[in-house]
Amino acid sequence: MIMIQSFSIHSTSHDELIDITSDVAEVVRGSKISEGVCYIYTPHTTAAITINENADPAVQKDILKGLSHFKLESISFSHLEGNSPSHIKSSLIGCSEIVIISQGRLLLGTWQGIYFCEFDGPRTRKVHVKVM
Amino acid sequence: MIMIQSFSIHSTSHDELIDITSDVAEVVRGSKISEGVCYIYTPHTTAAITINENADPAVQKDILKGLSHFKLESISFSHLEGNSPSHIKSSLIGCSEIVIISQGRLLLGTWQGIYFCEFDGPRTRKVHVKVM
Amino acid sequence: MIMIQSFSIHSTSHDELIDITSDVAEVVRGSKISEGVCYIYTPHTTAAITINENADPAVQKDILKGLSHFKLESISFSHLEGNSPSHIKSSLIGCSEIVIISQGRLLLGTWQGIYFCEFDGPRTRKVHVKVM
Repeated sequence: MIMIQSFSIHSTSHDELIDITSDVAEVVRGSKISEGVCYIYTPHTTAAITINENADPAVQKDILKGLSHFKLESISFSHLEGNSPSHIKSSLIGCSEIVIISQGRLLLGTWQGIYFCEFDGPRTRKVHVKVM
Repeated sequence: MIMIQSFSIHSTSHDELIDITSDVAEVVRGSKISEGVCYIYTPHTTAAITINENADPAVQKDILKGLSHFKLESISFSHLEGNSPSHIKSSLIGCSEIVIISQGRLLLGTWQGIYFCEFDGPRTRKVHVKVM
Repeated sequence: MIMIQSFSIHSTSHDELIDITSDVAEVVRGSKISEGVCYIYTPHTTAAITINENADPAVQKDILKGLSHFKLESISFSHLEGNSPSHIKSSLIGCSEIVIISQGRLLLGTWQGIYFCEFDGPRTRKVHVKVM
């Protein structure tokens, strides 16, 4: 069986990491696939998907702080919309992740969670999840 | 059905983003696969694949500008070929992307295009596309 | 046939790139799959997987040097464990890679090798490899 599902995210800040692990896990459960791969994809160009620590929420803030440390906002860009730093962060982190599915579950590490990265919010965003 | 196809790219600058969305879409069409995943992979170590805005070409230039803002060229590297900054950019952006296929088409966002990133051109380069 | 295999890595430095190409190739050979995709995934949040030059080992050191050039250690972070720079490097490089399998072999470029990136060692680490 092959399936795809989408869900929406409402970001509340300009830059924000949002934990979507349970949303993705629910799609995997619903797919009834026990061995396979899960693709997490966001169809936006100023957002991204990453996998990182799920224990201390400070890490999420520190990742954003690390990216802002690059001071991309200080560059004189051509794109008139003014959000080129958001586009660059999107390409640096990447708009998708894959996670292996084993015994019907996401094979994440103990400390791993899946995060939607908002780099140009607040906005309503979409995430596609495909299980194969 | 499982297939793989390759095509060549001729870059004309040292750093350049080249839109390969239509090349990838053509492989997907030719595969006759309606639901699946498309893997876009470049077998080079000073190049990358990224997904980003396809509307304003200024964004492509701004992404390169953002990467050059890191001033990697100012570092004293060991690799004698002198292109370590290109290798680093390749690992930061990554040499592959995945896109979900739905109803026979790439499930890209409205503003998303697929780009080959040249970081050590001009050169002739290869891209592999696999559909599953 | 669908399979997954894991192996351990022992890093010896705080920051280190370790060539895992032959370990991954062995899993592919053992899978007897001739056409497909190989997923390389590390379940850690201060490590990553990347594909880059396998000829001159200096490139591996230069990639680490490029990342340390960002001076992430100079930032005042919230996460009390003190390894936020390692978490950020993990998200920048990414905890997984995919490689196409063709005629029973990894379709790597001539100069490409697969590397485990240690950003918070020395430690014992895991890598999962799935072939589909």
